[in-house]
Amino acid sequence: MEKRYDVAIIGTGPAGLEAAINCKIRNKSVIIFGTNNLSTKLAKAPRIDNYLGLHGISGNDLKEKFLEHINSMDISITEERINAVYAMGDYYALMVNEKMYEATTLILATGIEYTKPYIGEEELLGRGVGYCATCDAPLYKGKDVIIIAQGESGEDEANYVKEICNKLYYVPLYKGNYNLNEGIEIIKGVPKEIREQGDKREVILSNETLSADGVFILRDTISPKQLVAGLETEDGHIKVNRDMSTNLKGCYAAGDCTGRPYQYIKAAGEGLVAALSAVSYIDNLSRNK
Amino acid sequence: MEKRYDVAIIGTGPAGLEAAINCKIRNKSVIIFGTNNLSTKLAKAPRIDNYLGLHGISGNDLKEKFLEHINSMDISITEERINAVYAMGDYYALMVNEKMYEATTLILATGIEYTKPYIGEEELLGRGVGYCATCDAPLYKGKDVIIIAQGESGEDEANYVKEICNKLYYVPLYKGNYNLNEGIEIIKGVPKEIREQGDKREVILSNETLSADGVFILRDTISPKQLVAGLETEDGHIKVNRDMSTNLKGCYAAGDCTGRPYQYIKAAGEGLVAALSAVSYIDNLSRNK
Repeated sequence: MEKRYDVAIIGTGPAGLEAAINCKIRNKSVIIFGTNNLSTKLAKAPRIDNYLGLHGISGNDLKEKFLEHINSMDISITEERINAVYAMGDYYALMVNEKMYEATTLILATGIEYTKPYIGEEELLGRGVGYCATCDAPLYKGKDVIIIAQGESGEDEANYVKEICNKLYYVPLYKGNYNLNEGIEIIKGVPKEIREQGDKREVILSNETLSADGVFILRDTISPKQLVAGLETEDGHIKVNRDMSTNLKGCYAAGDCTGRPYQYIKAAGEGLVAALSAVSYIDNLSRNK
Repeated sequence: MEKRYDVAIIGTGPAGLEAAINCKIRNKSVIIFGTNNLSTKLAKAPRIDNYLGLHGISGNDLKEKFLEHINSMDISITEERINAVYAMGDYYALMVNEKMYEATTLILATGIEYTKPYIGEEELLGRGVGYCATCDAPLYKGKDVIIIAQGESGEDEANYVKEICNKLYYVPLYKGNYNLNEGIEIIKGVPKEIREQGDKREVILSNETLSADGVFILRDTISPKQLVAGLETEDGHIKVNRDMSTNLKGCYAAGDCTGRPYQYIKAAGEGLVAALSAVSYIDNLSRNK
């Protein structure tokens, strides 16, 4: 059987990190998914004046302090992208492409998605439009695929998909070196809309229209509602109580994904509360066994 | 007319400080009441591991970092003890003995009172038992008074009261040098109960019983319910919504006084949220003028 963690945390911004620290202090086994860059938003902040105790720090320096903190507590980040989470009754199943992780409790610290869905995206979701290229690649064996990628991590997915599919258009929404395998066509342009055209799906860009059998949109953050089936949201944020619990038993949320203000120390404070609530939930479970 | 502040903050723990920082950043006039020692609890913490970004720091070092932060932003602490706050409709009146401060909004960051009331204290409150010796001193001209003091700040109050009253017993609940004027009798002992005995009030200590006309209990923190008339509490904590608003319009709360967990970064995060909620409340007021 797979190891079942006490706590799985999704997100490596201040909320996720502070949650991991507190789970560790309370002797819970914890896995945290995200990136060793922690958070693009954080790293790029020119100057932060309202993180109490660290006045006038740059985002990058604050990031380094966060890394130092988790490193000194032996917390390591699992650099995998969770595509879907399922509430299984007494545990959560977290899907990473073909792999699955299990955890008794879940802390969502996924940040906030700043991009709105494209026109047509939500209507076509699951019908030729998806968020996990590697998961669904087998469906497009020998067919044409469009990948719209917000960040570099899209390149690995594209290279993997290209081994299976026929034509692959890669639409990067970022600047970079694009380490892509041969045969992948890079398309520069801003997607405006996704459209159904018979069996085909069309992506309408500012300057041209692409046509393929499937479209994948790879964003750095995925909306929590899409990530966790059955999760209650309100105005685009996860609905939480004062103890950071959500409508799903054993599932907590913290940080920007729970609502404004989008601020580092608010996120960290909520991460702490979410962690201690998860810990107390686990302790209650084992007492009642 | 007295200057009316945009925001008055009571408490100089992480919640109060973080609130002050954010009010200042948002260009609101702010006054913060507390002590330049910030928080006894903080200063005495041997080691803090879960303040994200400052791993393994001592309470005293963290306190110094907090001080550095507010100093570099020109925030100074008003070292006065608020005895009572009244909601006046469109502003709050904060009473410091004979002085009054006015503020459009109020942020309570008073921490948590760890001491339970003495037996008889609540029943006799306002009838020979009070929390503000200097306020009520004129009532005891030529009479006998007992002061029970949790900290050094009680000494100033005692010296002032002694100028007016007859006999003064001073019961310090702390160790120190006791800089008290002549004629004040220091009594060592642990109060157990306060009792009504005809016109007199008796304080029953572990080893003796004191009798006087009035009794003052000077604690470092006063319970929010006693401080602010009409404030709604729940299980000893101020009842707050997710935006840290209380049942009183324009009154917010943050930190330990709003409930567990009693943790620094949780408090700071709430201080930020309370501040931004107060700011938005003020901005709405001026838009609707």
